[in-house]
Amino acid sequence: MNAQTNVTARVDQILGAFMAQQGRVVVLAPGSRSTPVALRVAQLAQAKQLELYVDVDERSAGFFALGLAKTRQQPVLLVCTSGTAAANFYPAICEAKISEVPLLVLTTDRPPELTKIGAPQALDQDHFYGQQVKAFWQLPLPSELAAEGDYTNMVVQRSVQTALTPPQGPIQLNLPLRKPLMPDLALPFQPVASLQQVTTTQTLAAQALTGLQGKRVLVIVGPHDTTSALTDFAAAAQRLGWPIWTDPLSQLRGAAATIGQADLMLKAAQGTLPTALQPEVILRLGGTLVSAAISDWLQAQTCPIYQVVMHADWPDHTLSTTVLLQSTLPALVPQLAALTPAPATWWAHWQAISAILAAALPAPTTRATLTEVGVPQVLARTLPANADIFISNSMPIRDMDDFYQPATATQRLFCNRGANGIDGIVSTALGMSTNSRPHYLVTGDLALFHDLNGLMLTQRYSLQLTVILLNNQGGGIFSFLPQHDEPAYFETVFGTPQTLDWAQVAALYHGRYQQATTSAALVAALAQPVQGLQLIEVPTQREANVAQHAAAVAQIQRALQESGWF
Amino acid sequence: MNAQTNVTARVDQILGAFMAQQGRVVVLAPGSRSTPVALRVAQLAQAKQLELYVDVDERSAGFFALGLAKTRQQPVLLVCTSGTAAANFYPAICEAKISEVPLLVLTTDRPPELTKIGAPQALDQDHFYGQQVKAFWQLPLPSELAAEGDYTNMVVQRSVQTALTPPQGPIQLNLPLRKPLMPDLALPFQPVASLQQVTTTQTLAAQALTGLQGKRVLVIVGPHDTTSALTDFAAAAQRLGWPIWTDPLSQLRGAAATIGQADLMLKAAQGTLPTALQPEVILRLGGTLVSAAISDWLQAQTCPIYQVVMHADWPDHTLSTTVLLQSTLPALVPQLAALTPAPATWWAHWQAISAILAAALPAPTTRATLTEVGVPQVLARTLPANADIFISNSMPIRDMDDFYQPATATQRLFCNRGANGIDGIVSTALGMSTNSRPHYLVTGDLALFHDLNGLMLTQRYSLQLTVILLNNQGGGIFSFLPQHDEPAYFETVFGTPQTLDWAQVAALYHGRYQQATTSAALVAALAQPVQGLQLIEVPTQREANVAQHAAAVAQIQRALQESGWF
Repeated sequence: MNAQTNVTARVDQILGAFMAQQGRVVVLAPGSRSTPVALRVAQLAQAKQLELYVDVDERSAGFFALGLAKTRQQPVLLVCTSGTAAANFYPAICEAKISEVPLLVLTTDRPPELTKIGAPQALDQDHFYGQQVKAFWQLPLPSELAAEGDYTNMVVQRSVQTALTPPQGPIQLNLPLRKPLMPDLALPFQPVASLQQVTTTQTLAAQALTGLQGKRVLVIVGPHDTTSALTDFAAAAQRLGWPIWTDPLSQLRGAAATIGQADLMLKAAQGTLPTALQPEVILRLGGTLVSAAISDWLQAQTCPIYQVVMHADWPDHTLSTTVLLQSTLPALVPQLAALTPAPATWWAHWQAISAILAAALPAPTTRATLTEVGVPQVLARTLPANADIFISNSMPIRDMDDFYQPATATQRLFCNRGANGIDGIVSTALGMSTNSRPHYLVTGDLALFHDLNGLMLTQRYSLQLTVILLNNQGGGIFSFLPQHDEPAYFETVFGTPQTLDWAQVAALYHGRYQQATTSAALVAALAQPVQGLQLIEVPTQREANVAQHAAAVAQIQRALQESGWF
Repeated sequence: MNAQTNVTARVDQILGAFMAQQGRVVVLAPGSRSTPVALRVAQLAQAKQLELYVDVDERSAGFFALGLAKTRQQPVLLVCTSGTAAANFYPAICEAKISEVPLLVLTTDRPPELTKIGAPQALDQDHFYGQQVKAFWQLPLPSELAAEGDYTNMVVQRSVQTALTPPQGPIQLNLPLRKPLMPDLALPFQPVASLQQVTTTQTLAAQALTGLQGKRVLVIVGPHDTTSALTDFAAAAQRLGWPIWTDPLSQLRGAAATIGQADLMLKAAQGTLPTALQPEVILRLGGTLVSAAISDWLQAQTCPIYQVVMHADWPDHTLSTTVLLQSTLPALVPQLAALTPAPATWWAHWQAISAILAAALPAPTTRATLTEVGVPQVLARTLPANADIFISNSMPIRDMDDFYQPATATQRLFCNRGANGIDGIVSTALGMSTNSRPHYLVTGDLALFHDLNGLMLTQRYSLQLTVILLNNQGGGIFSFLPQHDEPAYFETVFGTPQTLDWAQVAALYHGRYQQATTSAALVAALAQPVQGLQLIEVPTQREANVAQHAAAVAQIQRALQESGWF
């Protein structure tokens, strides 16, 4: 595609998203950099699809837009060129912030290569309005990448919702544009994007869910830290005959009639499900999924994908959601009662697959050397029903996703899955261990080393914590990534093996140390009464680990093929 | 004092500082909150002391000020009321930032209790212009506190220099004001402040230093990480007969004819020097002094205090500097050649005191229990001449200040004295240990624990580091502070004793561990060849430590009294 097509597409994504959110009014302060927006808006205004006001003085334009937004109770799109033009909006933005008026300020900008090197009319427009806007977004330069288009569309739709969420207020969208700036007005207006509909709690009624009526609905539940309303939802889903894929942090792993091994299944099936298992609609709940395989699979789906989000921060990095329900479970669950269940075969098919998956992975024999594949299986069976299990990033949580399959959903799993760091794991687990449930931490050696000092808190506050240390001598996850094929540098900058004697570490922090190389040994170690810190080291091998994971996937693959479904 | 006097004083400090930096032009956009500034400026303009322009439109006022500053090549003071008025300056500020025009923007603001709670015309003016200004300063509310007045004055003078330093640009000063806003115009204009003169390299000539001519000059040298030009300066000072007080981080501690124990001396003399030792002028160099006693003493001085600073960030939290030389040592040292030396008696007196101080503290006997007072003395004598010694905050650097007195200035001392943290001490020392000199770290147990993980780098990069651990079981410095008298809570929230076995720590990181309880043992431990990590633990007692420090001060006190000088 050429530059003209790309710039037209980007403008269409922005305007389309704005219009999808009931945006109708545009105020334009003319200039050069904003050329493609100005022309497209003028064309749409002539076609009565938008209402356009032009004001040559940006300060006045800002306040005019403010007045429009106040009377319409809808966000107005306020557009200007680059440079001090944007600064002239500042007074109106300050007023909008305090008086809670929804404004969508679209500042056009120079491309990166013209920033802060003396190019005319180019100033630093990044976070240009500081604390005076509710949010700032840097939009991507025009390109032919579909992901950037979907991203742009989602950002703009989300920005309208953010602007409208009380306290209402202004948002800055900064759009860099590179010359040539002329759009192709002969191209039809094409507001294509994955996100097609947003329903908020205010507008949530049974009709918002008619798309789920009698359909083969697949539910995917992501991380939840609390479970109250979720249990009601799961019961409703079961009544409707909707299978549920459970993230390891969903607090539903192991619940009746849920599928816990979707990640493994998709890896084994190389991302393609047989027709009988293909949903007509997908319904997502909860935070970002641990499973990259499921996220990838979502991106490849063409069916409608509903996502329930609690507020205007929409967690959908897959950009695959087509219908957003900005609501809460207590508001949603009652609406489900009115729906017709899925066809009975849909439920039956998934229960069959679920049984196949559950049987496919034989538990590690008691005397065989324990692996990172085996540990989650042992934990699921051995830890007490009321255990709180804190899981470290980055490999342990993935292993739990694939191989932790308890018989019931009474154990709770937690992880620092906001920023996915390996820092502060020990201290977070200890902070959580102050409740009355038995506490476990599953971690690699690198994360444990990173927060070693945190262990001091165990004794200081008489906390009880059992650490299951998967010691693969460094950053295990990197062995699964392409850099593993650079052996000359791999250990130095990725593997980073530490040289700690973990028995010494346990002694230093007055803990009990045990090593477990077999599942029998791990079970025995876990059976001992916990007094303060207990460190159970499970030595594993990074290289062998990759092979064991591959073997597990192959095993599932065989089971699926033998089932005749795949 | 009443509110009217206070607000008048604050305005006078601002305007006085602006005028002290050759500021003459004020552009005012009228409003209510800026009332006291507006009235005082109008009064001074009528008296021809300032040049005033009034423009009712703030956007226009901003650009008018920009034009004035461009033609005068001097900062213009641009004043407005609170609220969106300040936002109207934004376009001109953006232009000033890019075209490098010095502007001093004084935004008046609501007092804190009216911020963000719905008060009219009150928005968040904190960092209001984001990246578009070179600096942002929040000025203190009017008050009768002298320190706040001096602070205001220094901030405004410094802001002018910052605005003028290439690349020139705008600065925001935000001044909160509380009603009643009327100043007392009957009060004479009083731009009183400690800082009376600023000389930049451009204007630095011998005449800037005439105040030092033939005077009893006392030099105080603060932290320096490099020594090149400093040695030339010290030689010049010696030729002029100027005694030098050396901070432990000055890299001049132990140099010929310097006084290293000024902190102890001032503590012993309770902050008052006898007339014969009282300087006529003080000349300061380097960063913020470790010694609080010297800083306190500086604040009590009435003589001129010169300070040499390298750039427009003036490090003088004592607010006692009266003459600022914004220059460099290579520019300054040649100017010193033209000066007449101090009277011979001045030099002689200080050499006598220096000898008394040096003799006053007997070295710890080889078999007596080693204390935090004794360790620095042993290190000064025992470590190699080319040692690099990294010192931890917060107690060790103070102990080094008082008790580290080497015979020559060849050893180098370093410390993270920017933010004075106890985090990252081990890693910083190890980062420095990558040069070819022998490396030592002097630290308390709390700082060592804080960065314990850093020890891992020793083995990883085959570094050599000897750690002298002053283990007083927690935060030793707090025993010197008032909270020590709250025994019920002291250990929990200040003492925070750790329960680490340091021999185990050394073993964990493959280091050699030794304990030294006497100076003989410490000397022996330091004599051993260093291979990787060497950890020498010197156990001390927090309670005894306070008494030992007091005894050392008493010892110095007796020596000074016996000398007949004090």
